Amino acid sequence: MQLDEQRLGGAEVFRGRFLRVSRDEVRLPDGTHASREYVHHPGAVAVLALTGDGQLVLECQYRYPLSRTFIEIPAGKIDPDEAHEATARRELMEETGYSAARWVLLGTAYPCIGYSDEAIHYYLAEGLVAGERALDDGEFLEVFTLPLATVRQMAGTGEICDSKTLVGLYWLDAHLAKDGRDG
Amino acid sequence: MQLDEQRLGGAEVFRGRFLRVSRDEVRLPDGTHASREYVHHPGAVAVLALTGDGQLVLECQYRYPLSRTFIEIPAGKIDPDEAHEATARRELMEETGYSAARWVLLGTAYPCIGYSDEAIHYYLAEGLVAGERALDDGEFLEVFTLPLATVRQMAGTGEICDSKTLVGLYWLDAHLAKDGRDG
Repeated sequence: MQLDEQRLGGAEVFRGRFLRVSRDEVRLPDGTHASREYVHHPGAVAVLALTGDGQLVLECQYRYPLSRTFIEIPAGKIDPDEAHEATARRELMEETGYSAARWVLLGTAYPCIGYSDEAIHYYLAEGLVAGERALDDGEFLEVFTLPLATVRQMAGTGEICDSKTLVGLYWLDAHLAKDGRDG
Repeated sequence: MQLDEQRLGGAEVFRGRFLRVSRDEVRLPDGTHASREYVHHPGAVAVLALTGDGQLVLECQYRYPLSRTFIEIPAGKIDPDEAHEATARRELMEETGYSAARWVLLGTAYPCIGYSDEAIHYYLAEGLVAGERALDDGEFLEVFTLPLATVRQMAGTGEICDSKTLVGLYWLDAHLAKDGRDG
């Protein structure tokens, strides 16, 4: 079955302080036309930072769109022309103070394929060294570590319910299982 | 640590054909002010539909914001005043033709906490009966089933990289493990 949609034209229809939205006209597989609106995003990284004794570095952060705090793995947007792993090292350092000796790309996932072009690149960081964090102005978050078994339990019960973090845990577990480690 | 942000005011700054964006002014924990822009979403459901012989119902769909097809679990937006499980039953039927005898809510996850208020409610559907699907106008997707072991392998390698689907697999595995089933 032919599923592709062909772009016929389009324009940016909203440019805010943070968000940009485009609307394109497309030709559907049956030849009819439709509109597609979507948010532009620069892409992001997320970091599974694992201590030598099997603890995961986590954050608690208030997320305004949902008016509540979430437990999350460290993450952040990619700066223009920044290599993905450089973003991962920078965000881990800025948000948590940790630097890491060993970095592995676990995979890339797409959080919101219906209306955003965002991609999130997941890294495993090990060989952690604690240091001073350097939060951006206006950034407030708590940092803590928990044993991986506890984190898995919290993900199973829904206490951890940020999709970015759940995907990271899925890929971390797959990676550790492949390596014959249980975390 | 106090992490909450207090809303000071705000307005809808974009209303497109599908997307709505609000911008609010907020007071941060240190008393300074900031802007928050975010997309409004009615919420969605996603369905882990498992056949009697351990196969998962999947779809392949073109996603315009990323100009490619994705392998996904069935999902769809909640209609106004529609109960979540009713949405799940409706979307599974419309997109795949399957109805299901047994429904279990696995959990609720938030795909895009930085800039959208979307929530996705995950359901396990079992006791499947095949029937005729009834796609919306302009909706094109392929439906197929794969053994859960194959699906897990594709999620581990990144062949499945839609975050909604990866979160669903994580919670499905947690549920089956709790029940002492391996799928």
